[in-house]
Amino acid sequence: MEKKQPMTFAEKILAKKAGLESVVPGQIVTVYPEHLLTHDNTAAIIGKISDELNEFGIYSKDLNIIVLDHVSPAANEKTANEHKKVREFVKRFGVKNFYDIGTGVCHQVVVEKGLALPGQLIVGSDSHTCSYGVMGAFSTGVDRTESSALTLMGKTWLKVPQSIKISLKNYFKTQIYAKDLILSIVRDLTSSGASYMFLEFHGAEMLSISERFTLANMAIEMDGKGAVFQVDQKTHDYLKNIGIKRSEYEPIWADQNAKYVKELEYDLSEILPVVACPHSVDNVKNITEVEGIPIDQCFLGTCTNGRSDDLLIAAQIIKGHKVHESTRFLVAPSSRAEYQLALKNGSIDILVEAGAVILPPGCGPCLGAHLGALAPKEKCLSTANRNFKGRMGCKDSEIYLASPAAVAATAITGVITDPRKYPLQSLTEKEKK
Amino acid sequence: MEKKQPMTFAEKILAKKAGLESVVPGQIVTVYPEHLLTHDNTAAIIGKISDELNEFGIYSKDLNIIVLDHVSPAANEKTANEHKKVREFVKRFGVKNFYDIGTGVCHQVVVEKGLALPGQLIVGSDSHTCSYGVMGAFSTGVDRTESSALTLMGKTWLKVPQSIKISLKNYFKTQIYAKDLILSIVRDLTSSGASYMFLEFHGAEMLSISERFTLANMAIEMDGKGAVFQVDQKTHDYLKNIGIKRSEYEPIWADQNAKYVKELEYDLSEILPVVACPHSVDNVKNITEVEGIPIDQCFLGTCTNGRSDDLLIAAQIIKGHKVHESTRFLVAPSSRAEYQLALKNGSIDILVEAGAVILPPGCGPCLGAHLGALAPKEKCLSTANRNFKGRMGCKDSEIYLASPAAVAATAITGVITDPRKYPLQSLTEKEKK
Repeated sequence: MEKKQPMTFAEKILAKKAGLESVVPGQIVTVYPEHLLTHDNTAAIIGKISDELNEFGIYSKDLNIIVLDHVSPAANEKTANEHKKVREFVKRFGVKNFYDIGTGVCHQVVVEKGLALPGQLIVGSDSHTCSYGVMGAFSTGVDRTESSALTLMGKTWLKVPQSIKISLKNYFKTQIYAKDLILSIVRDLTSSGASYMFLEFHGAEMLSISERFTLANMAIEMDGKGAVFQVDQKTHDYLKNIGIKRSEYEPIWADQNAKYVKELEYDLSEILPVVACPHSVDNVKNITEVEGIPIDQCFLGTCTNGRSDDLLIAAQIIKGHKVHESTRFLVAPSSRAEYQLALKNGSIDILVEAGAVILPPGCGPCLGAHLGALAPKEKCLSTANRNFKGRMGCKDSEIYLASPAAVAATAITGVITDPRKYPLQSLTEKEKK
Repeated sequence: MEKKQPMTFAEKILAKKAGLESVVPGQIVTVYPEHLLTHDNTAAIIGKISDELNEFGIYSKDLNIIVLDHVSPAANEKTANEHKKVREFVKRFGVKNFYDIGTGVCHQVVVEKGLALPGQLIVGSDSHTCSYGVMGAFSTGVDRTESSALTLMGKTWLKVPQSIKISLKNYFKTQIYAKDLILSIVRDLTSSGASYMFLEFHGAEMLSISERFTLANMAIEMDGKGAVFQVDQKTHDYLKNIGIKRSEYEPIWADQNAKYVKELEYDLSEILPVVACPHSVDNVKNITEVEGIPIDQCFLGTCTNGRSDDLLIAAQIIKGHKVHESTRFLVAPSSRAEYQLALKNGSIDILVEAGAVILPPGCGPCLGAHLGALAPKEKCLSTANRNFKGRMGCKDSEIYLASPAAVAATAITGVITDPRKYPLQSLTEKEKK
């Protein structure tokens, strides 16, 4: 009997989902994903198939996950009406996994509600669907038309991607974070350097679930098909904590000696604080090169960096300071659950006292839809994942991307500031939780 | 020597401000207000006088109060640019009292920053400028053109209004509030029944400052010129608490036997829970007549009813319950300071746990500008002050107005609900503050 070719994570999971012994990169497979995620765009997606929905209904009540997060709450009659149509669709077809405005950014919600489990395949009509690799799932974005078909048929096809192996070791020096690492990787690979490739992170056991989320979330910023982390004790603990039993999932991981199109190694102790400068996510510079640039708006939030640990870092930095009068500081927790954690540990108290404006959980300023848009010539320092022209509502503004620590330090001074100048402060009893 | 004619509050303060011994209703007086309030509309107001500003500058750095609250944070490039122009104006002319996004609804901010003191005259380019009667000030709305002229010249003219005397006695039964009283008064007087008249509240010593705010705030809903409460120990205590010395203000009150165009009496113990129904604020019905009407959106907030005591009432009602799946519950604290009080007393924790969506301090859904707009055919129960067609962003929706208690009870059931069915619950140690 011939020895089976070792497979990468992506190959192995797609082979399994396609019911095949093995697959090779470039091969097309037909798969039935566990879930299809859509958000406010659900209105447009179901609008394409209204006749078919009348005739056939939806494929399954379990397939669709719908989270209203992009314009939350509704900005105007148009978006309010779209939300209304989505709620009517959910009710009419009994969609099980619906999360209304205020629950949070879809990707955060999917993970914390236990809808992305190890070994699962999830697709979604949003670029950052790649995030669920944090849980050892294969997840990737699909377009709206594909989402319409999936809603009706439950299946899709995927081309098996090549994979890039990224090995990590050691840990960050103080005030350097996962965001600095992923922006450094984006700089090295460029914004198209992982086109239709899958990022496999190895040696990440020292990273928290939230840190892994930040990394997986930005795979698409290199045009990657997705990203994944090996399921370990931290994953098991996270899942147990949200009520998922060990028997409910089956982790998959790459074989030893699988073939990668590229292999990279990062020593986290050598990573420096960096900033992605306008107007491309791979225009990454050391923060020391851009220090002093005046910033009109600081934004902490999004599926990349809006979790309670991100808010806690910001609170530990800004405690006792005030937001500088020449800037403003917007904070949007990535979900209601993360907001509640930040309420409990006192981060919200400290941020508000400093002058931050807390926005409802959701995408908020990230896409400039109705909250925190920029004016011409304004500059924003943001923890989000994208900085192309016009992303935050104005083509004549500039967006810089950095870690929550850099954003908090910048909120204090009003100019881009190296967070190493503002050490983390200890918290009081209440603040420690 | 002839005996001086007794004067109402409005007559007395306008006489004083005009440097006259006495005035009579209908008389035109020229006055220099202590302050001129403007909000996001500052951009339009200064746009009218750009040439004059270049030549003459502003009348005084102390006159203008500017609060960005209507679209906060900016919804799009247009509003972001308006905010930017306002910030530039503030910086250029050294305007002392500027409050950026997230500080709160302008009227709440003016009062809590000690910018509306007993015996002062304040005008503002917003209808609900009438609110500062809560502090024993004469305050009223002016239009944008008048605000432009005031910014340059510092003076305006007013016609001395007739006054209506409203005498209060006793106190509300449980789950009946100041909002029920003012809506009952609006029902009795009608939405035009106080046209260019000033409301003088007497016998209000049992009402808290927040309750008086709710009453004064809605004077304009009867087309009143303003409303006022007598300065008493509660006023002194409030002012002391925000750092205002007793020597900084000089209360004014109506003379005994002043002449009123109308006198009304309300026994608060006889007030019932009421709802202002679509599409007029004086279409007021007892809540028992409209119970059971399905409500798509519950909104707690605004300068009328978004203070920490309002949020506390809602928390005491909704504690242990969840927002009904057929509705949604938006909460916008009226200011950062009120948000902080609600964080301290635990109201925010309880509201979020129940499923409410906390919006940033500001006007939010009240005017449907960019947060919490309604869809066609949707119904909203709101603690705001206006329910005309289209107020919340959609002309085909319906707005009902009621107390915070009624809104919280309705959030639990999804249909208009008499709050007397949901008694206030006691709070834990932390929640009690």
